Amino acid sequence: MAEELKLFRTWSSVFALRIVWALKIKGVEYETIFEDLSNKSPSLLQYNPVHKKVPVLVHNGKPIAESLVILEYIDETWRETPLLPEDPYERAMARFWAKFGDDKVLTSIVWGVFFKEGKEQEEAMLEAMEHLQFLEDELKGKRFFGGERIGFVDLALGWLANMISIFEEVAGLKMVDEDKFPLLAAWMQEFADSPIIKDNWPPRDKMIAKFQALRDAKLAAAASK
Amino acid sequence: MAEELKLFRTWSSVFALRIVWALKIKGVEYETIFEDLSNKSPSLLQYNPVHKKVPVLVHNGKPIAESLVILEYIDETWRETPLLPEDPYERAMARFWAKFGDDKVLTSIVWGVFFKEGKEQEEAMLEAMEHLQFLEDELKGKRFFGGERIGFVDLALGWLANMISIFEEVAGLKMVDEDKFPLLAAWMQEFADSPIIKDNWPPRDKMIAKFQALRDAKLAAAASK
Repeated sequence: MAEELKLFRTWSSVFALRIVWALKIKGVEYETIFEDLSNKSPSLLQYNPVHKKVPVLVHNGKPIAESLVILEYIDETWRETPLLPEDPYERAMARFWAKFGDDKVLTSIVWGVFFKEGKEQEEAMLEAMEHLQFLEDELKGKRFFGGERIGFVDLALGWLANMISIFEEVAGLKMVDEDKFPLLAAWMQEFADSPIIKDNWPPRDKMIAKFQALRDAKLAAAASK
Repeated sequence: MAEELKLFRTWSSVFALRIVWALKIKGVEYETIFEDLSNKSPSLLQYNPVHKKVPVLVHNGKPIAESLVILEYIDETWRETPLLPEDPYERAMARFWAKFGDDKVLTSIVWGVFFKEGKEQEEAMLEAMEHLQFLEDELKGKRFFGGERIGFVDLALGWLANMISIFEEVAGLKMVDEDKFPLLAAWMQEFADSPIIKDNWPPRDKMIAKFQALRDAKLAAAASK
């Protein structure tokens, strides 16, 4: 039976981009279905009834949701160019930092700093700086989080590499100072410039327009409460 | 070299209990260090500088935090009595439901229903019911989430089995109605009664006293805002 592999994504979802990058790194062919989240397709709702979100990867009719879960599935199914290290302890560390990225870094930077103003934003900024410092320390002696090449944690944290400068531009503030986070700044540059990553990032002007509109809407909603 | 395995836990942490159960199921010997979270040991802070929480498993001097990450490490390190299934798709499903348990079920039940009152609690209850319905559906045709025996998802959701009735008693409400969730109610009973699980649950009266005090403190804090 021919393999059937479909990825439900949007043009801008950084969670879906993780899957795009992973499949391209592995050289796995797939079909893309672009979703409009304001008018979700019956297929998306059927394949991800719990979260109703992208990304969803459908492999021979079987759907998988949650981007980090999908990454592990891809790594276990197509074993060429592994994303996770082999050693159980190093695998645990990779899972730990990927989870830290979603639970802590993303929360403080996106929901705290980017979507807030004033005192709430200041508090979130302090938290975000602590989180980024952990990542800076984690990069000591390494080119990528995955070592000499891009791995699981790099893909999980990949949104940082391009989104930070978009958040900074839209919100008019500085988060990743090169003097304060030299390793993280260098990683962001090198990751973003890597061929597969670069070729699959949405256009910067479209992202800026989208995130400017999102931020305006969040701040307006908060102000009218 | 003799294996050195230490588990930092508290007597009541349901996250730490996952690790206790997993190690007992695998028959792995370990040393327990009981932490007092109001006065954390220097070792705990050194081993888990990011979250400063239990559980932390330290294997031959190397620390691992985050209970689901620890469970995967245990499963990859001691392969007898596997917790995760072998098939990549089934593994993905197990990871999905474990994450769903932490991100959604725990949030709606503990932070929403149990620690809130009035309208906020009512809204959280509706959400919790949706979440529990997904679990009910997932149990169709199965004895445990892991199939014929306790697996990864059972351990991840294990807190439900004993905590629901404690939450119900303390908050004076009903969450898991046997008519509405017959499979979940049966699973809760069978899981809680399993020898390794039962032998390693904290005493119910101590848990009730603890969670009564926690709830009183949360509600008092919310009222004084």
